[in-house]
This record gives sequence, structure tokens and C-alpha cells, in this order.
Amino acid sequence: MKPYMQMDRDELLAQKAELDEAFKTEEAKGLSLNMARGKPGASQLALSMPMLDVINGHSDMKTLLGNDTRNYGDWDGIGECRQLMADMMEVKKANVVVCGNSSLNIMYDTVIRSMVKGVNGSTPWCKLEKVKFLCPVPGYDRHFKITETFGIEMVNIPLHEDGPDMDLVEQYVNNDESVKGIWCVPKYSNPTGISYSDEVVRRFARLQPKAEDFRIFWDNAYAIHHLYEEEQHQILNILEECEKAGNPNMVYMFASTSKVSFPGSGISAIATSLENMEFLKKFMTTQIIGHDKINQLRHVRFFRNIDGMKEHMKKQANLLRPKFEAVIRILEEELSGLGIGSWTEPKGGYFISFDAMPGCASAIVAKCEQLGLVLTGAGATFPYGKDPQDSNIRIAPSFPTPEEMAEATRMFVICVKLASIEKLLNA
Amino acid sequence: MKPYMQMDRDELLAQKAELDEAFKTEEAKGLSLNMARGKPGASQLALSMPMLDVINGHSDMKTLLGNDTRNYGDWDGIGECRQLMADMMEVKKANVVVCGNSSLNIMYDTVIRSMVKGVNGSTPWCKLEKVKFLCPVPGYDRHFKITETFGIEMVNIPLHEDGPDMDLVEQYVNNDESVKGIWCVPKYSNPTGISYSDEVVRRFARLQPKAEDFRIFWDNAYAIHHLYEEEQHQILNILEECEKAGNPNMVYMFASTSKVSFPGSGISAIATSLENMEFLKKFMTTQIIGHDKINQLRHVRFFRNIDGMKEHMKKQANLLRPKFEAVIRILEEELSGLGIGSWTEPKGGYFISFDAMPGCASAIVAKCEQLGLVLTGAGATFPYGKDPQDSNIRIAPSFPTPEEMAEATRMFVICVKLASIEKLLNA
Repeated sequence: MKPYMQMDRDELLAQKAELDEAFKTEEAKGLSLNMARGKPGASQLALSMPMLDVINGHSDMKTLLGNDTRNYGDWDGIGECRQLMADMMEVKKANVVVCGNSSLNIMYDTVIRSMVKGVNGSTPWCKLEKVKFLCPVPGYDRHFKITETFGIEMVNIPLHEDGPDMDLVEQYVNNDESVKGIWCVPKYSNPTGISYSDEVVRRFARLQPKAEDFRIFWDNAYAIHHLYEEEQHQILNILEECEKAGNPNMVYMFASTSKVSFPGSGISAIATSLENMEFLKKFMTTQIIGHDKINQLRHVRFFRNIDGMKEHMKKQANLLRPKFEAVIRILEEELSGLGIGSWTEPKGGYFISFDAMPGCASAIVAKCEQLGLVLTGAGATFPYGKDPQDSNIRIAPSFPTPEEMAEATRMFVICVKLASIEKLLNA
Repeated sequence: MKPYMQMDRDELLAQKAELDEAFKTEEAKGLSLNMARGKPGASQLALSMPMLDVINGHSDMKTLLGNDTRNYGDWDGIGECRQLMADMMEVKKANVVVCGNSSLNIMYDTVIRSMVKGVNGSTPWCKLEKVKFLCPVPGYDRHFKITETFGIEMVNIPLHEDGPDMDLVEQYVNNDESVKGIWCVPKYSNPTGISYSDEVVRRFARLQPKAEDFRIFWDNAYAIHHLYEEEQHQILNILEECEKAGNPNMVYMFASTSKVSFPGSGISAIATSLENMEFLKKFMTTQIIGHDKINQLRHVRFFRNIDGMKEHMKKQANLLRPKFEAVIRILEEELSGLGIGSWTEPKGGYFISFDAMPGCASAIVAKCEQLGLVLTGAGATFPYGKDPQDSNIRIAPSFPTPEEMAEATRMFVICVKLASIEKLLNA
């Protein structure tokens, strides 16, 4: 089929008539599918069920150092779990604090603490006229929601194939004192799936921030979340690179096992320089006596070590891969050459990013919803929920079965085509 | 023996010589005991071990409503767990959000959020010249640490047998707009063990705060933590009383199962009015996708309901009671009539409060440490760690065995006597 842009009005109307029929057929099925969030599917959750057996009523509940995980203590996490998370994050154990079930929560805490108490002694952000964060786009809506909540001005930075537009990042960070942070998902980025190149990581490390309290929020959410054994992205260690570049305190790294063990019942961690840690500790130990160490022990006993964790992730990949491939196959079959959409083919992570013709994303999401298919809201991948192009849609293939995912993608494709034709007819 | 105050110098010196010997004997034993914190003892932890069996690798992981506890969702807690915590807190389920493993963390979050975003739309506290909290003393050091951390000025309020000095509370709250909160442990107070009378609770509810953003931080930490079946304290429901008095939004109530199931691996909750909840929700849902629902399910499946929880607490009481009684028996035997100390005889909670002769608490704690007995630091029960009388010492009998507790109390008594004599000799 030829590109829609090259069709005349009659051809478009003919296409539309066919698609309207198809839409009605789909609508009549009364399906209900949700691809809004990166929720692991039932088969993935089943993979982690044996973890619930490793600790039971007769287990030895002591850490390797002999501390009782059932009682208060070890505010920064039990040693063996700090080691496990350090290995997952590819940093030293000394730089890691293991926290609760949510890395998002650590990020929120880090921002709100900076609002009230500044960063390592700097002026509290709430006392400043203006605080800005750089936001590579498209990006993760929950990051943007945190900064929005605290009235931090968000600046869109285009995200390329190898990472954020570093010319722009350098221009902002090195010249604008009100720029205090940047949200990064450096590996298998949410939603485009790209990973930062070595050069990009090094340029991050070599930033010369105008603001002493500028920090990189390095959310390594998909550190070991590969889809293909033979095609694994590797990224440089930003903590090490920052240290080499003379900026040891410039980065906070975050990770969790939400998509390794259980979402909501996993463990999370922050890794940062010892100097940053000293500052964090004052607040973390005021906030809580300690996190759930029984769950930390459960994770360590189940995975044993980073190799066990990686083995587990291979099984997860085997379950996720067919879903990603189903989406991409159908997008290719149905949309290739039509000039009405492009999409990423990620090698890891949780999302496929779809770019519709400008001005079509909201209409596509609305049409999908009519068919009972809930997508992430259009605009969600941009600060303030505003996609200037109204083009980007995040597809989360993890939750449905591969069959449902294929079905859902067929519905999605119909909506993409219809919305594009309507746009062209009204142009 | 006659009161120390009535002894002449020679009598005191004779006493001292005996005590110095006893001290040396104890010192030679080289003991190491820690009564610094309210940590449950090993036998208490053992009581909760069967909880680790109720969820295993073959369990049905669905809530009563059919939600999968292993996945994202239910940000405010699974329904049956909200009900359990509501019953524990004696409030309606609709007013409860179940959170993570730490009620202290909810309190910290509540204070820091008010710093940055105010209370239900009020001016953020960080924008105000001065913010004050009332602190009934002696009280809980971790409460005071939160307000100290955020530069909130703390005002000591004497805690009587029936609760805080309400004349003073009313005077401050009803007239001083900078008074934004008060820390309360209304039942089996930490450390004195007193509970607020109905009249005190009603006077709280009838406050007419000068500040619209004044809130009572009602930490119901020991709601079901009775020591004696036949002598259980009951307190009025502050949420209901505030509603009746036309102050429905004036209170945040907190609780946790840290001393019911496992410290650090329990669940916590906040209860407040629906209007407060609407405001909290905006931040709580930005902060986290949801708390550990598998652990919530574990708690519900183990306790079944509030009756099961209360049964469990009877077993805890049976383990704790002998420890409290050992301390009190020895204090009575050794110190009665000497006029150098008084102590509480709590009917619940986790602490015994000891008041030494003014100016002696630090010396007693230091001497105990010399013997290998770690107590809560002198002054810890007061804001800024400053006991104006240097008199109050918090005794935490839960962690040692009853035998160790008796031994520790004998050591403690020697130190009390020695410090008092030294004080009198130097007067």
C-alpha cells in the first residue's frame, strides 16, 4: 500500500470506510485490555513465587553478620543485600543504601529533602525563586510528576538514539544556576528503549554545573532487564566516570527489583558518593529506623547473588520477548510504508515507543479506549502531560498474554490508521 | 534505710564505700546489656514466626476483591488490611491508608510535606518565619528528632498522669499562630506509660487553633499493647471527638504493627478525615505506586481479624510482663524510701520512666555504661536531648530476658545510689 500522504481524498475515504467497518467489528467484541502501565504479566509473577518459600516459620533469620533481620537495626540494609544491589547497580557496596519497596519513593524523598534542606548544605530549593529540572523526552511520567508536584520548572530535552541532546544539556547545566537536576533512565530508556552511549555518559560526568547543588537523577530501572541474551546493552558506570572527572558527588543512582521479583514487594536502593551519603544519612535515619530486612533476606536467599538474579532475568526475558515481538511484527505488517507512524524496537526494558503523525496521538488513544484498550494517556511521556507534537504513545506489552498483545496491536493499528486518515482529511 | 537526704556526710561516705565495692564487683563481670531502645525480645519475635508460613510459593495471592497482591495497584492498601488496621485504630476503614513498614516514616513524610506544601492548601511551613510544635515531656525522642531536623521550634509541655497540661496546650494552640502541631502518644505513653483521660481527649478535640493548619500528631503506637488483661487502658476516639467538636480535620492518627508482628517488617497506617486524605493522596500517589501488599496479605492471613491480633497481643504481654515486674520489684526493694528516685508502673506499652534526683540522670547513664549496661541517653526524652532537670531516664525492659533484666536493674540501682550520693556530697 502506498503512503497515506500520497493518497487522494477518494482513496482516503475508501480506506476509511473499510477501517470504520473493522473498528465496528472490534468494538462489538467488547474487549477489555490494559496496556497503560509497565506491569509484569501473570507468568512473570509466577516465576518469582518460589521466593516466598525461602523464608518460612523455621528459617534462620540471621544475616551473615549474625544480626536478627526480625528486629530493628541495619538502617542501610543488611550487608548481603547491599552487596546484591551493589552488584546489580555495578557499584561498590559502600556506596549503597538499601531502602523499601520503591525506588520512586527514594527519588521523591531526595527531591523533597532538597526542597527543604538543600543538597549537602546548599540553600533549600524552596527558598529559591526558580528551580529547574531537565527532562529528556519522551520520558517517564512518574519522574515528571514528582518535579511538577513541587513546582519545579521542567525543561524538555530531546532524547536521541544515544541519549539526551548533550549540547543542550551542557548549555543548560553549565550556564543556568537554577538548573538543579536532570531525570535520566540511562539503560533501555522508558519509553524509547535506547541506552546512553559511552560518550554521552562521559559528557554527563564532565559537566561543569553552574549550580553546586546540581544532581543527576540516574534511574537505572532496567539495569539487567535485557530481552535478548546475545544483544545486551552495557552502559558506563556513571559513579566511576563522575569520580574520574572530578565530580564525585554529582549523581544519585536508583534501582529496584520491582521488575525482577515483585512490583510493590521488591527492594530498592540508592547509590551515591560517600559524601552525599553522609548528608542523606542524617535524614534517612530520622525518617525511619530501618527498612524491611526480612524481605531483604528473602531476596538474598532466593537469588543468592547477582548471577542468580541474572539467570532469573533470562526467564523473565523469555516471557517478555514474544510480547514485544508480537507488537513489532504487527506494526511492521500493518504500518510499514504508510508514513503514519514509527516505533522503537527495544532490546530491553518494558516499553515500545510509538510516534504517530503529529496531532494524532490523543485521537488514537481515545479510539483505543472506545475499543476497550487502555493505553498510557497521550502526552504522559512529556512534562506536564503535554506532548508538543501530540505524537508519542507508550506501549507497555508486559501485562497481556502474547495472544492478547497481538489482538491489542491489531486494534491499535486500526485506530492509528483511522486517526491518521481523519487528520489528513481535515488538513 | 532512711532517705539519703537525711544522712550526714559520714553516713553517706559509708554508703558510698559499700557501693563502690558493689560497683567494682559488677564491673568485673564484664556484662554487655542493651536497654536503650524498645526492641522486642527474642521470645516475642518467635511468637510471630508462624506468620512467615501463611504465605508461601503456592498461596493464593489474591485479595478478597480479586486483586493480585503481587502486582502494582491498591496504593492505599488492600481492603482487608485497611479493615484490620482500622479495627486496631478504632476508626472507619474509609479513613485509613495502609503504608509501609514504619509509622515514623509516615510522620516524617507528613511533616516534610507540610514544610514544602503546607496543610490542605495553607502556606508552606518553610515560607514562615517560625513554626512551633508542642512536645509533651518526657516523650519520644524520634518524634522530637523529626521536628528538630526541620528547624521547627519545640516547646516543652509537662505530661501529667492524665495527659499533657491542657491549660498550657490551650493557651499555646488557641493564641499562637506559629504553633502548627503537637506530638502525642495518647495510650501507654512513651516513656511514662500514662494514657490520656477522656477529659483530656475532649479538650484536645475542642481546641480552637489560631492556626488553620494546626494538626494533632496522634501516634497511637501502643493501641493494643496491654500488659494486664484485667487492667486495660481505653482512650476516647480522637477522630470522632474532633468531628463532634467541629474540628474534623484537626488530627492525623498513626499506628503500626512493629510491636505486634515484626519491628521493621510490619505494616503501618495513617487515619484521618476524608478531606485531609484528599490532600494527602496527591502526594502519596506521587511518592509511590503502592506499598508492600504481599506483606499486608501476610498480616491479614495470619491475624485474620482484630480478635486474632488481640489474642496474639496477650501472648506478647505474657512475655513482657515478667520483665516489667522484675524491674519494678527491684526498684521497690532497693530504692523505696531513699528519696532518690521515682518510677512509673505502666499497664502497657514498652517503657518504664525513671526520675532521678535532679542533676543525676547523665551521671547514672554514664555509670551504667561503665558496667556494660547501655540505657537510652539521658535527655533523650526531651526536645533537643536536653532534660532541664537532668532527671529522666527511660528504661526499656523488652529486649533482655527477665533474668538479664533483673541483673540489669540491680546494676542500675547501684548507679542510681552512687550518683545520688556523689551529688549530695558535692552539694
